This record gives sequence, C-alpha cells and structure tokens, in this order.
Amino acid sequence: MKPLRIGVAGLGTVGTGVVRLLKKNYDVIAKRAGRPLEVVAVAARDRKRDRGLSLDHLTWYENANDLAKDPSIDVVVELIGGAEGIAHSVVKYALEAGKAVVTANKALVAVHGAELAELSAHQNVPMMFEAAVAGGIPVIKAIREGLAADRLYWVGGILNGTCNYILSTMRQTGRSFNDVLEEAQKLGYAEADPSTDIDGIDATHKLTILAALCFGQPVDFSSVYVEGIRHIGAVDLQFAEKLGYRLKLLGISSLTGEGRLEARVHPSLVKQAHPLAGVEGVFNAVVAKGDFIGQLTLEGPGAGEGPTATAVVADLIDVARGSTVPVWGSYQEGEEAVKAIPREEFFGPYYIRLDVKDQPGVMADITACLRDCGVSLKSMLQEGERVEPFVASSLVQAGQVQIVLITHSTQEAAILKALGQIKKLPQILAEPVMIRIVSQ
Amino acid sequence: MKPLRIGVAGLGTVGTGVVRLLKKNYDVIAKRAGRPLEVVAVAARDRKRDRGLSLDHLTWYENANDLAKDPSIDVVVELIGGAEGIAHSVVKYALEAGKAVVTANKALVAVHGAELAELSAHQNVPMMFEAAVAGGIPVIKAIREGLAADRLYWVGGILNGTCNYILSTMRQTGRSFNDVLEEAQKLGYAEADPSTDIDGIDATHKLTILAALCFGQPVDFSSVYVEGIRHIGAVDLQFAEKLGYRLKLLGISSLTGEGRLEARVHPSLVKQAHPLAGVEGVFNAVVAKGDFIGQLTLEGPGAGEGPTATAVVADLIDVARGSTVPVWGSYQEGEEAVKAIPREEFFGPYYIRLDVKDQPGVMADITACLRDCGVSLKSMLQEGERVEPFVASSLVQAGQVQIVLITHSTQEAAILKALGQIKKLPQILAEPVMIRIVSQ
Repeated sequence: MKPLRIGVAGLGTVGTGVVRLLKKNYDVIAKRAGRPLEVVAVAARDRKRDRGLSLDHLTWYENANDLAKDPSIDVVVELIGGAEGIAHSVVKYALEAGKAVVTANKALVAVHGAELAELSAHQNVPMMFEAAVAGGIPVIKAIREGLAADRLYWVGGILNGTCNYILSTMRQTGRSFNDVLEEAQKLGYAEADPSTDIDGIDATHKLTILAALCFGQPVDFSSVYVEGIRHIGAVDLQFAEKLGYRLKLLGISSLTGEGRLEARVHPSLVKQAHPLAGVEGVFNAVVAKGDFIGQLTLEGPGAGEGPTATAVVADLIDVARGSTVPVWGSYQEGEEAVKAIPREEFFGPYYIRLDVKDQPGVMADITACLRDCGVSLKSMLQEGERVEPFVASSLVQAGQVQIVLITHSTQEAAILKALGQIKKLPQILAEPVMIRIVSQ
Repeated sequence: MKPLRIGVAGLGTVGTGVVRLLKKNYDVIAKRAGRPLEVVAVAARDRKRDRGLSLDHLTWYENANDLAKDPSIDVVVELIGGAEGIAHSVVKYALEAGKAVVTANKALVAVHGAELAELSAHQNVPMMFEAAVAGGIPVIKAIREGLAADRLYWVGGILNGTCNYILSTMRQTGRSFNDVLEEAQKLGYAEADPSTDIDGIDATHKLTILAALCFGQPVDFSSVYVEGIRHIGAVDLQFAEKLGYRLKLLGISSLTGEGRLEARVHPSLVKQAHPLAGVEGVFNAVVAKGDFIGQLTLEGPGAGEGPTATAVVADLIDVARGSTVPVWGSYQEGEEAVKAIPREEFFGPYYIRLDVKDQPGVMADITACLRDCGVSLKSMLQEGERVEPFVASSLVQAGQVQIVLITHSTQEAAILKALGQIKKLPQILAEPVMIRIVSQ
C-alpha cells in the first residue's frame, strides 16, 4: 500500500528517537498501520551534527516552515518545542496545507490549542499530541477514546517527573530542596535552568490539555492556577508523613457544583492510600474519575527518548490507519477557551506551617486570626505535647518552634485572609507555608 | 448524520447497563462519535422481566441469531456470554452479514478468536472486545493502539477481581480460603458456582486475549497453563509477607529467548515494590513492558455494570467513527493459533511449603531430593531459628512443622521431579504447596 510520508521538524532527543524507532520497528509498524511509515524529509538547523543516524537520503530543510509546505509530505511531526515562533508556525502552515500534524509540544497545544483545534476541524485534518501529556503513557487515547462513553468529573495527575523525583528524594533522604535539585541536575533529571519544571509551568501545560480533553472544551492556559515546589521544606514532607499524607505536585481539574471549571497545579497532600501517593521518582501517573467507569489509574514513564517516541509513532500509526479523533474529542468547531475559577474559590482542607517564636500566647494569637476569618481548625502539631488530635514538633533553633495546622474544609479566600493577618503577628519568623490537602 | 443502528443481544447486567449508558449520555456520545448511537433492536428470552428500562419501542428477538441477520442493524453487541452456542453463532452470523460486532465475551474471543479474527478480516468488518479484558480499563486500546509502535516483551496482570478480593482479604485478616470465599459470595464478589473465577479459567480467557494482542498473533487457549487459588493457605500469605513478597493470581505472557510464547495463569509471588503488589480488592491491573516504552501500568475496575458498559460503548463510538483496528492489531489473515510452551519449561525461582513431622534428619532428606534433581536452595524458613538468610516457623500442631523453601531460578521440570520425590518421604504430612516467584 501507499506509504505514509513523514516530515520531521526538529531533530533533538525526541526527533532522533522517532526516526530511530520508525527504522528499528519498520516492519511491525507497517503491519500494524496497514502501510509503511517512511520519513522522507527532516528540518533542523545543524546538518553536520552527528545524531548516530544516517539521514543523507532525506530531503533536508533548514527552515521547518518550508518542510510544512513540501507537497511530497503527508504528515508533519513537530518536535521543535515552545509555544511560539517556529513551532507554532510550522503546525499552522502544515494544517493550512491540508497535512496531518503530530506534535509532542505541550506548550503549543496548551497555549494555542483552541486556535489549532479550530484550524484542524476546518481543514478536516487531524492534529495529534499523545506525547504532549505524560510522555509514554497513552493517557490522551485512554481519556478521549477509551472513556469516550462516560462523563468524567475529576482528573488528577503527577505530570512532571523532575518535581516528583525531587519530592520523592527529599522525603526518602530528609535532604533540602536545593540539595536534591542540584543532584537532579547532575543526573540529568532537571535542566540547567529548572524553572519550567519546578515552578509548575510544564505540569500546567499538560494539565490544561488534560482538562480540555476530560471536559471536551479548550481551556484558557493563563487562567489555570500554578504554584511550584521551591518553597517546600524537607520538614513539610516529614510532617505530611506523620499526618498520614504524601506530598506531590499535582495537576487537578474538575467541575464545580455549578458546572464551572476548576484547574490547578500545586503541591498537594494526598492520603497515603491514594493511587497517586505511591508513584515515586521520575514516573508520571494520571487518575481519571467518571460516572460509569469509577476510577482509572495510568502510570508510566513521563519523559525520555524511548517513551516519547513511542507516543509520537502511535499517533502516526493512527494517522496512517485513518483512525483519528477531533482535537478535544468532539465534532464541533469554533469553541472559545474556558476560564478556570480563581484560587479564591478553591475549597478544601489546608495544611499551614508556621515558624514562630516560642512564647506564651502565640497559639492564642494565631487561632484568633483563623477564627476571625471563619477558618476552623481540625488538628495541630506542636512542641511534643498533644494539643488536638495530632501533636508533634520540630525545634528549628533555640526559642523557635514550628507549628503545623490542619484546617477543616474552607474557601481559599478565607485562608489567604487569615494568613495575611497571621504574617503580621510579631511572633511569626518566616513566610507561612500553605499546602492544599486533596481529598478526592 | 446517519445514526449507528445497534442491536443488543443479551439483556443481563451488562446488556441493560449498555442500553442505560447509551440513553443517559446520548448527547455527549453523539457529539464524540460524530453521529447518534441508537439501539434499535434487542434479543433476550424473557421479555416480561422488569429491567428498569423502557424497551417497548425496540424490535425484540427471542432468538439472537435472527437479530444478527436483521438488515436494519449496523452493529451487533453480543452480551450473552459463553464460548459456544448462541454467543458464538450470533457473532459469526453478524460478521457473515457484514455487520460490525462488539462483544464483552472473553471466553468466546479466547477460544474462537483465531476463527473470528479471520472472518472479521475476510468480511472487512471490525470485531471489538475492549470489555472482554479487565472490564473498564481500556487495556486493549492501550496495547493495540497506544503501544502499537513498540515491541512488547512482557505482559502481566491481575485479571480476576474475585481472586484478588479473596487473596487481599486472606492476607489482611488471616482467614482461610473457604471462609473468605463464603463471604465473597454473600457480598456478590463471587458466584454461587465460583469455579470459573477461583480455578483461574476467567483470568486465562483474558490472558489468552492479552497475549495475542501483545505479540500480534492468536494464542491457543488450551495450551495456556492455568492453576487457581484453592490450595493457597492463609499461612502462605503470611510467609510471603515475611519474605518481602505479595501473593497474587497473575496472568503472565512473554517471549522466551528463542521467541517461543510463554502464557500462564497461577498464584504468583511478586516483590512488594512491584506495581501489581499494591492492587487490592476487586480491582484489576495490567503491566506491559516494551523496548521503547519501558513499563506501563493500568489499574481500574475489572468488572461491574458501569465500567463494562463504558468499555462496550467506547467500542461502539470507535465503530461509529470508523476508527477500528484489526483483531490482533495487524493487517494479516489466516493465522493459526500459537501454542504456549508447556509448564515443564517455565524458569524462575520457586516457593515451596512443606508440612512435615518434626523429626531429626527431615531437612537432610528434603535437601537431598532437591540436590538430586539439580534444584539449588536460596533460603529457608523453619522453626524460629536462622538456618539460611530467612528463618521463621509456624507450628501447626504438636510434632508438626511447616518449612518454606525458596529456590534459585530453575526449570519447572526439575521442581516437579523434586516434589515428586519429596512427597514420598515418610515425614511429609500433606501435599506440598508450590508457588512461582515472578521476578519481572
């Protein structure tokens, strides 16, 4: 049968991985796709770099935009990365030229998904992005096709392997954030500039896409609340453990009682029996909950050349088979991106850690602030003596003590107001640490 | 757009669940499928039974074979069950009539998959069976499509919720198999005649299908080794725990070094850190390993009206979209079912529990049998004193003691020979219990 002619834009780790996988498994892929998958052109700046692959027989473009317009190509694989610039234009040009697109670019789909989905629908050519969320885990396929019959009401995931590695290692070793980050950089688990990972941006890209798939409408990336893990202390992981929780950077999305979208990425405490609690190291995992399915968990490698290439080529096989699905899973055009609710409306229990001077009356002042803001306390850990259900302590230095408060479920607006007041108390020695408890 | 016209054969729990789900989520399913999904006909014997659904407007067949031939139907959903008889004929007739088939019938696909796959390919109509393996978990889609680019080399799963519930409960409570089975029957987790579940037949049906999907060829069901959980004692679960293992009924398939198929279902000891070790209760889970993906784990509800209906309707949406895949994932016809290797060729470490008379020399006699058969011992638990790395004991009654042996990796033929000799020793009081240790 006629081969599927592929142009690969971007020959970094994932790009060379895709070319390598297509070559190594050529026969079995052709059998599964019903036709051969042939790379016919590539686009990359540096032609001379040794990529460990023979690429001489391929058409070579220095400008990926030209590859997008090459009439001998059926499908463009965009592996350049970044929400703007050449990655954005090559995908647009390819769709405009009536070519299918496969991309691993989470930033692009998160930020420009609504526009590109409309273009894909209008041009009646697929845009596939399995590799953009949770690397090798076929979570997009599972949600958009496997759970297509159900109404989902909650999705949550560990979407960034770097953060999960750092938090797992901090918990297991008791070492500090900076210490473990440095090690992660040496091991290649974190970038030289780690901010996209540790400030939660990467996870937010992925969550934005997941939320759009679960609820069938594009989501406004800039409205998704994001908070990274820089402020987490090793002591928080220890307190969490004592309280029966595990601390993870989660991306979570759900519909409120009024049908409004909630989408947020932040450090989260989950019960140790939660399916996401046991996911350690660089692994990713996603839990989806629906009316009929109950609960489904997927766990696997969230990054890396092999897993990511597997996801990209699975999309290519779907394109070759003609088994493709609209971007957000439904046949509809021209949908505006939906805004997620602001953080002030989040609702749930909270963990608050305060570093305070060990003086009489400090607890009275703190609890008065909470009471005045309508926040009710469930339990407290402090100074080795049992004040409420849980009690413990961690003396940081002489005259200083750490207090951990667990609240009953409350609106985040109330927590923010209370923390604003508590911060001003003269006994408070450092910025309070607030971590949301996820009970679903 | 033209609706997809559905005929449902079998109105038991799953059948009514499918009709209910198609009705409840009619609008969202139509949007996702690109066309409405309409049930137009049903086949069931007892027309008068109250199923909590209005079915009066549908064409009603008492004989499902007539439904398969109804020209007003595009797709037949077979939910009658059983490998033979009406379930088999209705699927054959439907495919012969050029209709797509969706079935949840694991026995049918396991036993007659090769024949039906050939018919499906010859007629160029899809046969879908997502609900046949692991209920609501979209594991067939994940393997056949999500991992289509990769070569898998190992798949293993907890494929029977009844067995997993019984083993989880035995471990947690220390109660006996019969006691927990009786409770499971009261709770509706086990059938009045539980043999299909607890003797491993149901898991073997599912594993046969999984193995065929992973390795792209039909598998001879009758060649798959099967062993149930009736002989497992609460004491084995306790020994396992002490040794750092958890005991699960697993279905496992892989390719041997010579490319031969291994496929087997039996109680298995896995390390407590293994992704299948923590799956408790009625849940199912599957782990797939491949060259490029590394390792993927899926966990969710393995049975029940809602999850199973979700899987059936997901298949119907794929049929409506025209996004279907050949039965074993590859475009080829006329493949003969492959035989799995016999148990004598299995290779790995073994757990052996012996109930023996507490007499001097008993260990010498047992270890002589093992040595004579070429089985080397890794560790032993007995009588509270440390003999080798692990040691413990459990006195069953005066003068009687339980010994647990862990062997190094060895062929099962050697274990069987050794056990044959050990059984004949005069100090052996009961049938030895042998459990395979799964180290992958």
